[in-house]
Amino acid sequence: MTPSVDLSICLLTLLIPLTLSGKVLVFPQDGSHWVNMKVLIEELHAHGHGVTVVRPADSWYIQEHSPYYTSLTIDIAAGADEAFFSSFVSRQLQIQREGSSVWTRLALDMELKEKFSEVHHKVCEMVAQMLGDPELVQALQDARYDLVLTDPANGGGVVLAHYLKLPLIFNVRWTVHGEGHFAIAPSPPSYVPFPVAKLTDQMTFVQRVRNFLMYGFRMFLYRRTVGPPYSALVNRYFGPDVDYFELFQAADIWLMRVDFVFEFPRPTMPNVVYMGGFQCKPAKPLPQDLEDFVQSSGEHGVIIMSLGTLVGQLPRDIADEIAVAFAQLPQKVIWRYPGDRPSALGNNTLLVKWLPQNDLLGHPKVKVFVSHGGTNGILEAIYHGVPIVGIPLIFDQADNLSKMQAKGVATVVDIASLDRGVFLQALQEVLHEPSYRENMQRLSRLHRDQPMKPLDRALFWIEFVMRHKGAAHLRTESYKMPWYTYHSVDVILFLLAVMTTFVATFVFGMKFLCTRICCRYKSKQD
Amino acid sequence: MTPSVDLSICLLTLLIPLTLSGKVLVFPQDGSHWVNMKVLIEELHAHGHGVTVVRPADSWYIQEHSPYYTSLTIDIAAGADEAFFSSFVSRQLQIQREGSSVWTRLALDMELKEKFSEVHHKVCEMVAQMLGDPELVQALQDARYDLVLTDPANGGGVVLAHYLKLPLIFNVRWTVHGEGHFAIAPSPPSYVPFPVAKLTDQMTFVQRVRNFLMYGFRMFLYRRTVGPPYSALVNRYFGPDVDYFELFQAADIWLMRVDFVFEFPRPTMPNVVYMGGFQCKPAKPLPQDLEDFVQSSGEHGVIIMSLGTLVGQLPRDIADEIAVAFAQLPQKVIWRYPGDRPSALGNNTLLVKWLPQNDLLGHPKVKVFVSHGGTNGILEAIYHGVPIVGIPLIFDQADNLSKMQAKGVATVVDIASLDRGVFLQALQEVLHEPSYRENMQRLSRLHRDQPMKPLDRALFWIEFVMRHKGAAHLRTESYKMPWYTYHSVDVILFLLAVMTTFVATFVFGMKFLCTRICCRYKSKQD
Repeated sequence: MTPSVDLSICLLTLLIPLTLSGKVLVFPQDGSHWVNMKVLIEELHAHGHGVTVVRPADSWYIQEHSPYYTSLTIDIAAGADEAFFSSFVSRQLQIQREGSSVWTRLALDMELKEKFSEVHHKVCEMVAQMLGDPELVQALQDARYDLVLTDPANGGGVVLAHYLKLPLIFNVRWTVHGEGHFAIAPSPPSYVPFPVAKLTDQMTFVQRVRNFLMYGFRMFLYRRTVGPPYSALVNRYFGPDVDYFELFQAADIWLMRVDFVFEFPRPTMPNVVYMGGFQCKPAKPLPQDLEDFVQSSGEHGVIIMSLGTLVGQLPRDIADEIAVAFAQLPQKVIWRYPGDRPSALGNNTLLVKWLPQNDLLGHPKVKVFVSHGGTNGILEAIYHGVPIVGIPLIFDQADNLSKMQAKGVATVVDIASLDRGVFLQALQEVLHEPSYRENMQRLSRLHRDQPMKPLDRALFWIEFVMRHKGAAHLRTESYKMPWYTYHSVDVILFLLAVMTTFVATFVFGMKFLCTRICCRYKSKQD
Repeated sequence: MTPSVDLSICLLTLLIPLTLSGKVLVFPQDGSHWVNMKVLIEELHAHGHGVTVVRPADSWYIQEHSPYYTSLTIDIAAGADEAFFSSFVSRQLQIQREGSSVWTRLALDMELKEKFSEVHHKVCEMVAQMLGDPELVQALQDARYDLVLTDPANGGGVVLAHYLKLPLIFNVRWTVHGEGHFAIAPSPPSYVPFPVAKLTDQMTFVQRVRNFLMYGFRMFLYRRTVGPPYSALVNRYFGPDVDYFELFQAADIWLMRVDFVFEFPRPTMPNVVYMGGFQCKPAKPLPQDLEDFVQSSGEHGVIIMSLGTLVGQLPRDIADEIAVAFAQLPQKVIWRYPGDRPSALGNNTLLVKWLPQNDLLGHPKVKVFVSHGGTNGILEAIYHGVPIVGIPLIFDQADNLSKMQAKGVATVVDIASLDRGVFLQALQEVLHEPSYRENMQRLSRLHRDQPMKPLDRALFWIEFVMRHKGAAHLRTESYKMPWYTYHSVDVILFLLAVMTTFVATFVFGMKFLCTRICCRYKSKQD
């Protein structure tokens, strides 16, 4: 599927349609997820495929003009509300530190759920607006796309693909129903920890009870709060016989942003393709001033810190405590922090608004990565073999970091109790206890030792779907069964009924026989 | 892991032990399974690895001298009893044709189970003999193997690997516990057909009941009849705390001789590597006389027929019926048949004792493959895109062919009712109904379109285990749980108990309260 270059190849291309470049319709998830989708889009472009990206008019992340794709801008305000999430993080931080009541926490949690619900409603509106525009629909049909590529953190792409009768590929870690696997693969709650529960694959009885309850409750919640707008949309366009969740589970290929050096091993399906770490790449040389700063660290090396894009300003006292702890170390520190300069910043600490994270992580002088525990950052740290001091803030971050802790490659600091002493101790432990680095370098070797690079594997399967119009032979149709059939509940009840009937007949028969014999015996005696 | 060639590479090899050639100890399954193991061994040899093969002194299949491996011959008579299986096939054939009583069939079935039980006892004796020889054990330890590669159709390699504390790789389709997946992956009986049940992944209620019962019964049977000798062996060498089935499930990598163009998609695990069709390769040119015969078929093409190595002589009347049917076709026929020449053989039919099956299947003139439905033959037919007329005889053959029938690439003829008319009709259907060939060619395209050749993938993972001393990060440890923990039965019972207590307390509380209120009301009225 590479672009044709000379005449002979051109002719060959005309003769064998299989080698033609493909056309991909992308329905992304706005916000930080876009970073992942962009990697795939750039690679599709490099392979000579044409990409069209559907975006809401107000999207800040998904830019209208790009050399890698054509935009299809829908005139609706449905972009990611970064201001909300940023303020949410600050408020959650405050609550954690002040030890607020359960009700305050619950109220904030509900607010987040409301926000997510609003996001899904907006996505549904956006799709409805597309499908309600006959000209646009005609144009989409005329464009003859090969497939729809979507991030199923929202369900818009699922509906669109079904409407246009196109194969469907997921670029997925989270779905509208929770972590990707839970939507299609068997997930025994006895050893598959439900995400965000901060559990491992080896649980005590109490932890298993908790995991079981969380599993049930979350599934219920997702189906109740997130499902309805999509079900309504599906009902409107495909009639009442089509089930939204079935369309969802019918995706041809699930490109899963998961790697088992990071996650715990668990059951999977033949149409799940693991591409965890697909965005990782070797480090490029640093800008000269940064390289000079790094080299000035001498044998002590460098610590880098970044808490992601959602955190702007940290509470001043926390920023100061962090700065003081850093100042006590012989290492040099590069700290990505867009907030006000902490007063107690040491001479060894360089404050920057942005840092080339991947290039720094790949630098041999870098000893520790202080991170909030976002998936991408963790996978980059694994790729380069740099151990972590984690300060989780929101979403899956605490869960991600607890996994890293279980694998002996990270320590985790609770921001609510963070002070210079606690933070310094965590840094020194990871700096001076060699097992952290050794374990991380072992994970790095395991992660890099794959038959194919994750990104190449992802591209292979996208092109596979183009060539074969799907991947039906890898996909079970078990999702079409009602749950009681899937779990053989009807069969078990039937067999129990048969057994009961059999036993009952036997017992009553024996009883009847005994009574008769007794009667005869009695009448004889009489 | 390729052999070093020049000095610089040699030096590099000394510096980086990761690139050294590995040493593999192979504990194979004697008999037809050896064909598959040999493919892997030859490839390991080609990659510069040293291979030692453990074999019983009387093995006819596993030869003592080979350019590809060193033999470790154990002085015991434990080789595959081909005479028994060959006679078994003949007797089963007779029973099928004569429509004998259920008891006769059951007796024959029991005889087969006895034979398998004997095979496993002999393997256990063989391993006990090895472990009881201190010099041999010392030599095995001194040899510093990187891993044990075994076909888990017997459990000898599992015990040996654990004794020598070596990583373990399976070359597997069948295990001592049934089809490979059933030993490690979740296998919902609602859509995963139990092998040899001739069911598909879409079952009626009655079929699901049958599948459920077969699943339970077979698992019970395997554990009762095959497990005990291995458990005794494990008990003797590792003490009563070690469970044989746990050792089995702890294998690092399962190289599964399965491909989903052949089998139905179903849940899997991260340490399962699919290498179905790893033995398939492009056709080589035919010997000149065979090529001339094939070319003489003109536009009609050629039919090839082979019923595998276990069938020597067919009953004379069946052979004659087949011959007569063939004689009525305009196609040429190449029939691999070691028995007496049928009297009614047509001029168009060439009888041979052996045929280059892969090279013939890859010849463009070959139109139909008449096969008994062995896995290897089916995968070769898929690879080359040749539709099948199946005549199943024994073991998994009927099940394999029923899958091919479900995918629209084969018709199946029951040997019990085979006559010239039935057979001719089956041949003509596959010859003249284009969908058979089209479907098979589609399967062929799907099968060949993989990111890596199955054999290369297998080698990659064997070398991965060499480099990392196992693949623990891909393997769940869920097999260490008792079944009621794995299936959360304890958690469910606990939650039910809590709920019951809660409801009971509530009901009794309400009752008590009502009684009190009633009493007061009554006493007031009084």
